[in-house]
Amino acid sequence: MPHDCGFLADLSLSPDQISFERADRDRFATDYGTHAADASRPDAVVYPASTADVSTVLAAANDRGVPVTPYAAGSSTEGNAVPVEGGISLSMERLDEILAFRPDDLQVDVEPGVVGGDLEAHVATEGLCFPAFPQSAAFSTVGGMVANDASGIRAVKYGELREWVLELEVVRADGTVLEVGSKAKKSSAGYNLVDLFVGSEGTLGVVTRVTLELAVEPARTLAGRAIFDSLDDATAAITDAIRAGIDAATVELVDSLTAEIANSYTDSGLPSEPMVFFELHGRGVDREMDALVDVLRNHDPVRVDTAVEEAERERLWRARREIGQALLEYDPDRELEVVGDVTVPIGAYAEMVRFVGEVSASFDLPIPAFGHAGDGNLHYAILANLDDEDERERVSEASGRIVQRALDAGGTCTGEHGVGVGKREYLRREFEPAVIETMRSLKATLDPEGILNPGKMFD
Amino acid sequence: MPHDCGFLADLSLSPDQISFERADRDRFATDYGTHAADASRPDAVVYPASTADVSTVLAAANDRGVPVTPYAAGSSTEGNAVPVEGGISLSMERLDEILAFRPDDLQVDVEPGVVGGDLEAHVATEGLCFPAFPQSAAFSTVGGMVANDASGIRAVKYGELREWVLELEVVRADGTVLEVGSKAKKSSAGYNLVDLFVGSEGTLGVVTRVTLELAVEPARTLAGRAIFDSLDDATAAITDAIRAGIDAATVELVDSLTAEIANSYTDSGLPSEPMVFFELHGRGVDREMDALVDVLRNHDPVRVDTAVEEAERERLWRARREIGQALLEYDPDRELEVVGDVTVPIGAYAEMVRFVGEVSASFDLPIPAFGHAGDGNLHYAILANLDDEDERERVSEASGRIVQRALDAGGTCTGEHGVGVGKREYLRREFEPAVIETMRSLKATLDPEGILNPGKMFD
Repeated sequence: MPHDCGFLADLSLSPDQISFERADRDRFATDYGTHAADASRPDAVVYPASTADVSTVLAAANDRGVPVTPYAAGSSTEGNAVPVEGGISLSMERLDEILAFRPDDLQVDVEPGVVGGDLEAHVATEGLCFPAFPQSAAFSTVGGMVANDASGIRAVKYGELREWVLELEVVRADGTVLEVGSKAKKSSAGYNLVDLFVGSEGTLGVVTRVTLELAVEPARTLAGRAIFDSLDDATAAITDAIRAGIDAATVELVDSLTAEIANSYTDSGLPSEPMVFFELHGRGVDREMDALVDVLRNHDPVRVDTAVEEAERERLWRARREIGQALLEYDPDRELEVVGDVTVPIGAYAEMVRFVGEVSASFDLPIPAFGHAGDGNLHYAILANLDDEDERERVSEASGRIVQRALDAGGTCTGEHGVGVGKREYLRREFEPAVIETMRSLKATLDPEGILNPGKMFD
Repeated sequence: MPHDCGFLADLSLSPDQISFERADRDRFATDYGTHAADASRPDAVVYPASTADVSTVLAAANDRGVPVTPYAAGSSTEGNAVPVEGGISLSMERLDEILAFRPDDLQVDVEPGVVGGDLEAHVATEGLCFPAFPQSAAFSTVGGMVANDASGIRAVKYGELREWVLELEVVRADGTVLEVGSKAKKSSAGYNLVDLFVGSEGTLGVVTRVTLELAVEPARTLAGRAIFDSLDDATAAITDAIRAGIDAATVELVDSLTAEIANSYTDSGLPSEPMVFFELHGRGVDREMDALVDVLRNHDPVRVDTAVEEAERERLWRARREIGQALLEYDPDRELEVVGDVTVPIGAYAEMVRFVGEVSASFDLPIPAFGHAGDGNLHYAILANLDDEDERERVSEASGRIVQRALDAGGTCTGEHGVGVGKREYLRREFEPAVIETMRSLKATLDPEGILNPGKMFD
């Protein structure tokens, strides 16, 4: 349903901040996933340059009931930023300043359009880093990371992004500007509004400024890799390492199909065998590595490399980062239809990985499995020939089975990608109706007209 | 205003679960703080033994508009659990079971009345620990910790309690039972309701079950102590250590007056000089300790002990834990009127501590300062002769100045104790009216009759 957005011209925006052009509207109609509907093109694109611009647009849209969907870098995979009900796409790309860097506080204030990689480079000048970045940080932006509570390969040690968000400036649907949270590292002052907005996928408010906590760059980093004959050995080694309290920053699983796919795309030099990558941070990494190797050796590894040099490490992590692209290009006859990120308690991880293998076999679908294993986070992709109706149905059924298994183990349908359009059905499976109803009531309180990113999550 | 609670007898509770006795009502009229009003005695005390009991009582009280204030161990300091508007005190003491312990998942499910120390002992049998406990854990319970988002001396490394809460069963004001969160270590599935309930001080719902993440007991622990000539040297050493990325579990500041007070209460053997206690965890602690000592030595310590034995460490931490009691008993002519826990960005910590000293001098009040310095969390106490009206006014003014200074530095009025009654004024200073109004609207959504712990926070 098209929405009349002519009112935008009457607001205090300059002409170059508003576009009704088809090319611009097309650019904001999709994300990196496959969940954009035909009808999901915005009617207009607005490029705010300040918090006041965001407030002005929201207040006016709210008065008219016109949907507004914030759009960061568009690297979401579940249609999170796709304006499925049309209206306005609110591009955050001009809000891209690093506003203040306070290295002695280990803090930085940024606008939501700042690209993760740019922020990393900026804070590195003072020996600091932002350890909660997702794999997409070279092009994804802080605003999108906050919206989806992103996390990445270092979450084993450093946790989710939300743990690093101290303060937010957020504009409510009616245009009211809120500053929530505190620049203190911890606070018990009132309700935790920061964590309500983080991960809310732009459905409760539009984030216009973020104060992030930073970490000091590790004094030393060691990386390594263990290759196993079987995936079961690999996952058993991982769960044992976590149970032993190995202080790892990163524990990544790569199965043999994923390794093969990565090799087809880039010169990753990965053997086509189940592997575990790991990275340890800190002054005492040598002792930690000794303990980790002891655990790994209990599971008959084919080979353990513990002193991966920086260049080689970079090559490994590049291969890991590029898996998404590699999956897209692997098989010209099959599209990347499902990108899963279920997460389960660590004790259930090995069984979860095994189950994905069983689903792959029984549904006759290639399902490469990989992921941030140290958190219990399992990524998997389902590659499918979408012209084949039977195959499409098998994909849907296989995906549902995998998610259900994760939920039965007490886990979640999404560890870091968010719900968007693609996981709405799974969200309803994950929570009882009373919980969904509670989420809806919070949404109705903060956005009574329902203008913010409609059609997502439980909507 | 008394509330008629006769309806309780008609509910499906056994007679021993309901009390109208004065002695019981008195027991729930206060907490460890000084903020209980004369009118704060409950009209009835209910002892639920199940989630169903909680739901039954809430639904009935909600229908009648009768206040219900959950009460855990009563170790809060700001009147958080005091039923200032009467009605029902809901004692959690019979909900004290450890329901399930899953060591391979590093998880435990507990009822809210479980005492921290008992939980610690239980999970230690499998080499696990719960590192986010507050100093009061020997007697405080999980429910109260969750309600106030407690934290303690290990928060430098392990963070606030909320980071360890995975899943909650919560009963809404109308009796609806919700299971929020996930047993996965991370999740981006829908709104983060867990973090909305954690720290809400029983004003949004009553927690009846908590799934906590656990940590593996550190393979090695080193503790130490540095003594300085001046408080400025001590705080400069602390902020430098954090800026250098020292991976400390604990960094505690104790000023000379606090040391003297601790010594007066127990055989702590602390010299009456500014001190920093620290504890390091992990397999690589020796290297970390070397780096920490290098930092400390840059600030002219009188003495640095780096190999504090376990018995001595226990004596130190006991002295630290007992500071609260020591303060109560220190001066028979002065009461413990203010227990502060402001928290500021770490770069502002030294200045904050200095300011407290200035306030102490200019208002002629003894204000011992100590705290979880590694987080920027500063505890201070104001001891006052409350019979002296002029002194009472000076206490109030001094307390306000200290809090305002923390807020001006971007900090918070409470790092871990919560708002309760005592910090309501400071909460209004910390947040703009639009933020307070947003908190109020969430409260009205989840508790439309306003029965849950009324008169707290912004109420």
